[in-house]
Parts: sequence; C-alpha cells; structure tokens
Amino acid sequence: MSIDLRSDTVTRPSEAMREAARDAPVGDDVYGDDPTVNELEAAAAELVGMEAALYVPTGTMGNQIAARVHTDRGQEILVDEQAHIYKWELGGLAQLSGLQVRTVAAGDAAVPTPQQIQDGYVEQSLHEAGTGLVAVENTHNARGGVAVSPETIDAAADAAHELGVPVHLDGARLFNACVALDVDPARMTRAVDSVMFCLSKGLGAPVGSILAGSSEYVERARRVRKLFGGGMRQAGIIAAPGLRALDNVERLADDHENAARLAAGLDDIDGLSAPEPDTNIVQVFSDEAGLSATSFVERCEDAGVLGGAHGDHLTRFCTHLDVSRADVDDAVERIEAAIEGSSQTSGSR
Amino acid sequence: MSIDLRSDTVTRPSEAMREAARDAPVGDDVYGDDPTVNELEAAAAELVGMEAALYVPTGTMGNQIAARVHTDRGQEILVDEQAHIYKWELGGLAQLSGLQVRTVAAGDAAVPTPQQIQDGYVEQSLHEAGTGLVAVENTHNARGGVAVSPETIDAAADAAHELGVPVHLDGARLFNACVALDVDPARMTRAVDSVMFCLSKGLGAPVGSILAGSSEYVERARRVRKLFGGGMRQAGIIAAPGLRALDNVERLADDHENAARLAAGLDDIDGLSAPEPDTNIVQVFSDEAGLSATSFVERCEDAGVLGGAHGDHLTRFCTHLDVSRADVDDAVERIEAAIEGSSQTSGSR
Amino acid sequence: MSIDLRSDTVTRPSEAMREAARDAPVGDDVYGDDPTVNELEAAAAELVGMEAALYVPTGTMGNQIAARVHTDRGQEILVDEQAHIYKWELGGLAQLSGLQVRTVAAGDAAVPTPQQIQDGYVEQSLHEAGTGLVAVENTHNARGGVAVSPETIDAAADAAHELGVPVHLDGARLFNACVALDVDPARMTRAVDSVMFCLSKGLGAPVGSILAGSSEYVERARRVRKLFGGGMRQAGIIAAPGLRALDNVERLADDHENAARLAAGLDDIDGLSAPEPDTNIVQVFSDEAGLSATSFVERCEDAGVLGGAHGDHLTRFCTHLDVSRADVDDAVERIEAAIEGSSQTSGSR
Amino acid sequence: MSIDLRSDTVTRPSEAMREAARDAPVGDDVYGDDPTVNELEAAAAELVGMEAALYVPTGTMGNQIAARVHTDRGQEILVDEQAHIYKWELGGLAQLSGLQVRTVAAGDAAVPTPQQIQDGYVEQSLHEAGTGLVAVENTHNARGGVAVSPETIDAAADAAHELGVPVHLDGARLFNACVALDVDPARMTRAVDSVMFCLSKGLGAPVGSILAGSSEYVERARRVRKLFGGGMRQAGIIAAPGLRALDNVERLADDHENAARLAAGLDDIDGLSAPEPDTNIVQVFSDEAGLSATSFVERCEDAGVLGGAHGDHLTRFCTHLDVSRADVDDAVERIEAAIEGSSQTSGSR
Repeated sequence: MSIDLRSDTVTRPSEAMREAARDAPVGDDVYGDDPTVNELEAAAAELVGMEAALYVPTGTMGNQIAARVHTDRGQEILVDEQAHIYKWELGGLAQLSGLQVRTVAAGDAAVPTPQQIQDGYVEQSLHEAGTGLVAVENTHNARGGVAVSPETIDAAADAAHELGVPVHLDGARLFNACVALDVDPARMTRAVDSVMFCLSKGLGAPVGSILAGSSEYVERARRVRKLFGGGMRQAGIIAAPGLRALDNVERLADDHENAARLAAGLDDIDGLSAPEPDTNIVQVFSDEAGLSATSFVERCEDAGVLGGAHGDHLTRFCTHLDVSRADVDDAVERIEAAIEGSSQTSGSR
Repeated sequence: MSIDLRSDTVTRPSEAMREAARDAPVGDDVYGDDPTVNELEAAAAELVGMEAALYVPTGTMGNQIAARVHTDRGQEILVDEQAHIYKWELGGLAQLSGLQVRTVAAGDAAVPTPQQIQDGYVEQSLHEAGTGLVAVENTHNARGGVAVSPETIDAAADAAHELGVPVHLDGARLFNACVALDVDPARMTRAVDSVMFCLSKGLGAPVGSILAGSSEYVERARRVRKLFGGGMRQAGIIAAPGLRALDNVERLADDHENAARLAAGLDDIDGLSAPEPDTNIVQVFSDEAGLSATSFVERCEDAGVLGGAHGDHLTRFCTHLDVSRADVDDAVERIEAAIEGSSQTSGSR
Repeated sequence: MSIDLRSDTVTRPSEAMREAARDAPVGDDVYGDDPTVNELEAAAAELVGMEAALYVPTGTMGNQIAARVHTDRGQEILVDEQAHIYKWELGGLAQLSGLQVRTVAAGDAAVPTPQQIQDGYVEQSLHEAGTGLVAVENTHNARGGVAVSPETIDAAADAAHELGVPVHLDGARLFNACVALDVDPARMTRAVDSVMFCLSKGLGAPVGSILAGSSEYVERARRVRKLFGGGMRQAGIIAAPGLRALDNVERLADDHENAARLAAGLDDIDGLSAPEPDTNIVQVFSDEAGLSATSFVERCEDAGVLGGAHGDHLTRFCTHLDVSRADVDDAVERIEAAIEGSSQTSGSR
Repeated sequence: MSIDLRSDTVTRPSEAMREAARDAPVGDDVYGDDPTVNELEAAAAELVGMEAALYVPTGTMGNQIAARVHTDRGQEILVDEQAHIYKWELGGLAQLSGLQVRTVAAGDAAVPTPQQIQDGYVEQSLHEAGTGLVAVENTHNARGGVAVSPETIDAAADAAHELGVPVHLDGARLFNACVALDVDPARMTRAVDSVMFCLSKGLGAPVGSILAGSSEYVERARRVRKLFGGGMRQAGIIAAPGLRALDNVERLADDHENAARLAAGLDDIDGLSAPEPDTNIVQVFSDEAGLSATSFVERCEDAGVLGGAHGDHLTRFCTHLDVSRADVDDAVERIEAAIEGSSQTSGSR
C-alpha cells in the first residue's frame, strides 16, 4: 500500500473519534440546540482566547465568511501573494463578496511586514476601493509550512490596526505553528480580530473548522454561514470527533519530527534538495536530478509514495498522524530507489 | 419534555445511523477518495434516475449550487413567490450568483403552471436579463407541504424546456411527495434537469443533502461546491448515516398518517382550523380563537408542544420520525387544554 | 417622414440647447471643476427640494446608484412588479449590487400601498435578507404613464420609514406627474430620501439625468458613479442643454394635451380602445381589431407612425416636444386608414 | 492664472468641437438611430483596425465592459500591478463582474512579458479560478506615460493566446504611444482582441471613450453598457466633438515635445530629478530637495503650477493641448523660484 504524503487532509479519524461520533448528543444547530456543537464552539473559543466561535464545514468557508464579515461592500483585502485564501479558494473573495485582492510578496517571512502593510494599504478615495482587511496565514501552506512567530503576527496586526484595518488569521494549521514554536494558541492569536483553524488536517477530525472572534462578530458570521450553505443541522455527529481532535494538538510534534527526518533523508539523495522544515510540510526540489515535479511525483507514485507537484521542480510531502517514523524511513528508501533507477536508465542511453 | 413539532429538521439520527458513522470507511473526498461518499452519491443518483450526484452539507447549498451551474452571469430565475430558494436563503441567488428573481403566484398548485412560465419567461434583450432557470419545489414547504404530482412537474418542465430554459427541482422533502402520491422518485424527477434532496429532515440523517443531474452538470457543481466552502474531507463519517437515511423513505408514510391525525384533532378544537395535509406539514389557523400565531405558539410552548409561527394567524407543525402516534394524541390534548384555558380566561373578563 | 411616437426618449435638443452646449463653460467634473455641471446640480437639487444633486449619464445609472447607496450588502429591495428598475435594467440590482428584489402588484395605483409595504417588508433574520429599500416610480412607465399623487407617495414613504427603510423615487418622468397634477416637484419628493429624474425624455435634453438626496448621500453616490463608469470630465457640454431642459417643464402640459387628443382619436377607431391618459403615454389595445400588438405596430409603421409593442395586444405611443397637435391628428388619420385598409382587405376574403 | 498640469483630463474642447456639438445630427442611440454616434463608431473602428466600436461615456466604463464581456463568471484577470483597471477603478473588476485580479510586476517594461504571462497564468482547477483575460495598458499611466512598442504588445498577446486567453488593451492614451513611436494605431492593436481609447484626455473631447473589437464582441458589449448605465440617448451632441478629437492625434507630438522640455527644465533645478519622458507625462522626484510630493505639490500650487502627488516623493505633471511651450517655460521658472525660495528659507534658519 502507498504511503500517502499528499496532504494532512487525508488523515483518518481515530477510533476515539468514531466512538465520539456514534455517541454524540445532538440537536438542531440552526436553532442553537446541538449540545456537542455548543461544547466544541466554547472549547475552541477558549483555546484561541476569543469570545466566541462558530463551527463550519470547511476551512475555505471559514476564511470566506471571515473576509465577508470584516468588510463592507466594495473594499479591498491585503494578503501575501501565496495566501491560500487568494490562491486556492476559486476567487471566492471576488465571487462571493466582491472584494478586490491586493497582494504583497511576503517571501520567506510568510507574513507581510508592517512596512509592506503600510505600503500596500489603500485609503478609500474617489478612485480607490480602500483596504478593508489584512489576512495572514500561519503556518503558511504554500511557503512550505513556515511557522510564523507570534511577534511577527503581532507586528502585522499592529500595523493594520494603526490604519484602522482589522486582521484575520488563516490558521488552517495554526497548532502546527504553536507546537513548533512552543506558543500557546491564545498567545498566537492575541493581536488578530478573527482566526480560522481546521479540526481536520493534522488534528485528524474527519470534517470541520472553527471561526473565532468577538461575540458580535461570530453572530454576524453565523448568518453568513447560512447564506453560504453551511448551516448544518445535527452537526454534533461531526463536531464530536472535532472535540476529540483538540486532544491531538501535542502530538503534532511527532509529525514535525517525522517531517524533519523525511527532509534530511531526501536531502541526502543525489539530485534532490529538501530544506529543513519548520513543521509538517516538506518541500523537495528535483531540478538537479533533471526531473520536473510532475515526473518526480509520478516516479514516487510508482514507488508507492504519494506527493504533490507544487511548482516546476517543487514537490510537497506532508507528514500527519497516519504516517509513522517507519513509514518515513520506508518512503525515503523507496524514493531513493526510484530516483537511482531513473539515473541508471538515463545513464545507459 | 416538550413534543418538538417545529420542523422535521430536528430529527435525531438512529442507532443504525450512529453505528454507520462509527464504522464508515473514509477517504479524502476532495480527491474523490471517500468510498462511503462515492457509494452514497451512486445510490442517490440511481434513486432519482440521474447520471450523477454530489453530496453537499446542506439543502441550501445544494439549491444555490444548482442555480449557479444552470445559469450564465446576468440571467433571471423564475420561481413561485413562496419558494424556499427565494424566501429563506438570505438572497443567495443575488448575493452568490448575481441572479435576479422573478416570482409568480403559484397558489395552491404550488408549482407554476405552463401558462405562468410562458408569461413569466423573459427573453434576453437590450433591456432585459433573460430567464436562465425555472425552479420548482416538491413538497412545497411554505405552502403547507403540498405534494405535487409528477404530471404537474412534467408540465412545468416541458413549458420551460420549450423556451430553452432548464429546470431545477428543490426536493428538500422529495420523498414525502413520492410516498404521499405513491410515485417512484425517478418518475418524479423525470422531466427536470437537476434535483436536490435532503438526507436530514424526514429521513433522519444528521447532516447532508444531494444534488443530482447529468455527469457533466455534477462535475461543474463539484467545483462550485468548493467555491461555496462545501468541499469536505473525510465526509464518509456523515455520508454513512446518509446512506442509512435512504432506508427511511417508506416510513415517511407514518409521518403523513400522524400529520393527518394531528390536523384532524386540531381542527376539532374550537377556534382552530387545520386543513387535511398532503404530507407531514400541518398548517393551523388560529384567527377564530382570536389568537395571533405568535400568541398561539407561546400558548402551545407553555403546554409542551413546540411549533412555529408562519403568518399572522398561521402556525406550522411538522411530524417526523421522533414523533409517535401517541405523541400526536398527547399534543392535541395539550393544545386543546391550552386553548380552552385561554378561552375561559377570556370569557371571564 | 414618420411620426415617431416610440418614446419621449427620441426628443431632439432645441436650438437653445445646442447653443448652450456650444457656449458652456467647462472644467474637469471629476475634480469638481465644471461650473456648468455645478450650476445644473445646484438648480436640480433646489428644484426637487433636496440638499444636493449629482449629474449622471442615464436614468438607469441614477437608479442603480441610488439602490446601491441606500443598501448594505445582502439586502432586499421592494418594488412594484412593473417597476422600470426591476423590469428593464438588465437585472442590475442583483448584478451590480447583489440585491434581491421583492415585488408587489401595485396595479392601477402604480405605487405599493402602505399595507403592501408592511406585508412585503422582510425583517432581517437568520434565513432572510431583510428589506433595505423601497423604490417607487412616478409617472409609472409600464403602467401607462400614471401620475401618482404626492399623498400616495407620502403614504408609501411613511410606511417604509416606520419600518426603518429608506425610499427612492424613480422619477424618470417626474415632471410629467407634477405638471399633470399641478404639484410642485419639491412637494412631490417631500417624503422620499432620494429621487432620480431625467433631463432627456420629455424635457428634451440630449443626455443626462439627476440623482438628488442629502449631501452625505450624494457624496457617497459620487463615488459609486465613478465605480459604474459615469465619472465624465468636461460634462458641462451636455449639462448645459440639461440646464435649458429645466425650462421645458411647463410645456409638458402640451404633450399631455396631445396625448389625450391622440387617445381620444384612437379610441374612436373601430377595433381600438385607448383609455384617457394621465400624462404623455398612450396605451392602445388592438384585440378587438384582431391584431396582435406586433401586427398593429407593423401596420402603423407602414402608415408612417412609430410605436412600440408592450404586451400581447398593448401598444404604447408617447407624445413629446417633437410632436405637434397637427402630428397627432395626422397620426390618428394614418392609423385609421391603416386599420380600415386592413379590415377591408380582410372583408374581401 | 494657474498652469494646470494635473492631468490631460482637464483639456477643454476647442471651438471646432463646440461648433460640432451644436450642429450634430442626433437620434436615439439606444435604438441605434444617432447618425453622429454611428459615424464616430465606424471611424473609430477603422482607425484601430477592428470590426466594430462602441461609444461609452468614460474610459473606466469601457475597461469594465471589456473585462466583463471577455470573461465567464468566476475567472481571473492578469494585469500589471500598476494597471489603471486594477488600481484606480474602485475594485470594479470584483464589484461589477466578480473577477479576481492577479498582478505581475511589469516594471519599466510596463507590459507583462510572455514569461510573466505564462507564469501568472492559472489553469482552471478544482481550487483555482482560472485566467480569463490579460489586460495591458499603453501608454502606461502610473508608470510615467511609457510608450510600449507594438512588438511588446504582440508578444504579450501571443503568449496569452497560446494559453487560450483573450487580451484587452487599455489605450486611454493609445495615440500618445502611437505618435511617440510613429506607429499606426491599427498596427498597435493588431494582436489584441479589444481596445479602449479615450476621446477626452489629450485629444481634447469633452467626454467619451471608444471600446472596439469584433462585431460579435461589440454587440455583447452594447448590452453590458446598458447594464452599467451607459446607454445614452441623443449622444451625438458629445460624439460630434469626439469625431473632431480624432483630428488631434498628430498634434500630440507637441505635447510630447513640451513634456520633454518640461522634464529637462525641472531636472536642471537643484533637488529635483525628472527622467526624460516617452510621452506627455512627466515624473518628478523631489527627495533630494527634502520635499515630500505633497509638500512639493503645495509649493508648486502656491507658485501657480498644478500637479499631482503620485508617491512619497513622486509628482506627476501632464502636458496637453491647453498647455503651450511658453506655459512650460513659465512653469519651470515658477517652480524653480518656489523651490529656491524654500531652500533659502530653510537655509536662513
């Protein structure tokens, strides 16, 4: 069977989660009657130090609701050019909320600097939409799972706030950042106005994300959730595994260790380079092997290791709770064999 | 404990559903890897006689995706003035897809007549948006759970198709109509281009709905589902109870019998009138009792029966799988006592 | 040469207007530097008793700006089902501002009654968009140029205001109503929050309309005008004839007299019926002549009279400043001959 | 009186234009009946080598129509990060058409390179909106009136076309580029699918722009013009000066000469630097004088020269048909005096 390193979205629920789903007390969440959802929302809000929280079916919906609720019709949102909310959400900001996106190149820092925010900020004028939101991402997916320090988040948020602009944190993998940097989640979100985090991905819940903010903000978000078609009924069945997922925060450290081990192993292979990762996302460059990412991914797949092409020569592997240290070692061996085999073949011609 | 007749959305999952949730094989559905979701989509498509189906978190999302995929930017949609998609989905047609709504008064027929469709149809012109979709609803929620015959649906669909306009069927309670009229679901949907039905509500699944249509249509719907934030991951955990929900179709007859019994009982109470219902939705008029719907609902609530005000003097009660025949008799007695008490009080003054 | 009764939009600028265009002092209106535009806006605001006014290229743009500025993202607008803003503006409310439209059937009254406004009003809820604007129209184009009394406008506006909803008056032909009812324009608009009126149409300016309201409202409207592409530069060239057009208000009485004469003449023709018009729009029904509106319009066109089909058997003729009393008599004669000719032809078979 | 170098949008119509406005044959352009508009559209289409053309009230409307007609709901548009359509049109692409913008940094080249287009191109996927349009600008306003060669435009267009993406040219100042490079307009637009150019600005018409493309494209654009509120009636009154404006193409060379003279003169002033301009836009940097653009603009204004702050230390001056060579020399003298005065004042303290 293949070792699936395509994404930590492939994680499967544990037995404890499955039992929790079976046993969950439920009610009609649109009426606010689902005790499990209520418990999850309360626990989630406390965890990130916000007044209130809302359970949503996906991280994408959480982000899109967040942007809509923070802004007025006709504004702009400022994000890193590699932000998930801009890059991989089907243009939802423009489609669902009419928001123009302005990008800055955050580079390795992953989060715009205060200077970039000041420079990118647009004051509403007769010709200009005006900035209504700054969104940051931590860990930063497309930049290789970079864990951003709370001080960096604070600095961005302070710069935005000085301009009167609220800040949303796309924390799809928030706890990976917190564990990697040994920071309390509520510390990490201290300066932002809203945060979205996923219960699926590394935490292993089958479905679901959280959007947290002030009570007034979450009340308005609840209505937009209905508009976007996210007002589920007896959602306790999936909120229950979500509650269990919160127990998985500490074990993300294992994923990070496995990712570091994977990167080191791959970096040792001739023709591959893999920088040391901050968290559970490993980026591998295959240009020296003369392999495009697409070819490399195919080669890996044939050898029983699944990954994803993320650039011309950039492949992404994710570690997660269904990948053990032994799997990692196995994956390195398989990839090494696959690459070597290829080199020999090339050489023989 | 109160008898909850507010809506069939309050139904709770059965033990079988809970076990199914616990035991479901799952995968990442965004990658198409969730076997339970795949099984559900296949079963659902077959049930309604369509090529393909898509699992979505809510009926609202199913309807909104349906409308967007059928239309081009800048068109109109023609619906009954009491349609759920227009009335109770937060203006999503305009908000999410820029569609103008044109309403006709379908009245007791619940579905626009061919004549109404021809009259309401707008040809695209230099001044006019042009009709891009006709949507019908069966059973019709706001009109009292009216079960519309397949011939009526066919006639509407034929009229629309002659004008070159596709037809979507909002079948949130499709199976209530099918059971009430003893019609095969695939017969009911024969003439329409897409259908949405809910696995929650009367069928008892905790979460989830289905949007079905041609393979090409569903492929495009899958992308819009992602845009709207409905692309869940290990959705098999909730798709599994959804599959079990399909076993509950036949038992909707019990809900209908209970609703008829409830209506008859309430109609016998002085000051109340309750027409015989087609399905599981009972409409009660309290004007002769001198009670607004709001007062009547409060009175009922105090007596331990939950319902909802749907008009000045119109209250709605829904029967569902968590309401037994004994509950119905109990509810009638409680309401009678509550009303009588009130009449005596009124009388003494 | 044909007598053009298709619409009062076909009116041609007078010599005085043409001279005014030639001689207009101009500046860059986007910078607020065009003295002629400034003069026109001031005169227009005063005329309708509002604090401020904005010059826009068309009535459609004026209406669409008005709706957008009055509402928040995600609201509804309540209008008569025959309102121009809903029927003939290409779905702009949904397309440009995401607004859902709710229609009421105002019938001959042309403007929704207070009761209809109260009934059609939707309070914002978890499921409902919520009413953000009521728009009324005077004279009412699609209902035959009906002139609505100021008391009727007041009543609608008061009903809306009691619900906390602002009111926009689509006064594309506002002065026709004022002249027909001998009411000061500022009286007519007393209770509404904004008004749009056209300088073209009956007043004869080549181009342009006015949107008036409070200073704060117009300031926001100015920005939306830019968004919609209506921020013209040396607009004084067309604002100057617009200023002259304000001198044409009183002469609208001639158009009304001509329209009454035209209606009476047509009503006398066998097979045609034409109710006495309120203003300059004549509605002719040709069903008794066995002619569809399309056939009737063709017949008239062949006879040198241009009109427009507005229903199965309903044709519309408009009088305007380029149509004299002699033209009207001529038109009646030509149409009579055309219809008789047709009857004779029919009779000979 | 001040020398107004804020923009070439401040140009005033000539006597010939004013006479043309007075004498223009007109008709109802919404019915296609305005001979002057028809003549202008035909002449404009021929000038830029396109099948058809549409008269629109502003360049912003022309650009926004262009983008909407080229794209499907839910796509992206690729532009330079300094493009007018993205930067100074109030987020219209997202607001009016739901389009996400993707920017590239074209730098001094002003137009994205083929490589940038290939890199910035996004293929429609389950997560990505997909590129639906590339828009380029010539001359490039925000980059200092850069005149881009037809070969550069061709290369960008070819790169886009290879990806199946159409190309729009924002030619608000198209003729400035053509005159500066001595290129026929039809040659400049040869490879693009649509072009917008302004009759106002340097050509001196009071109002109006042209959108040109294939006949089928312009037909669809005509409908969007109505939607956006740009369907004017007797537009011949302003189209006539627009026709005269086409006679002013060759004299743009004078503006360029004046701009070069202005730049040279300013560059000689201590503390200022002004690169040699391609066309009629002069960029002046005042950092060495220790003056922010805002202060410098104020200083100039006091001295009777109007300009605009376009960056921290960047001020923009435009030459145009109301600015003579003598005005330029006068402006240089006034600015020199203003700056010197300031230096002395500073020095004496």
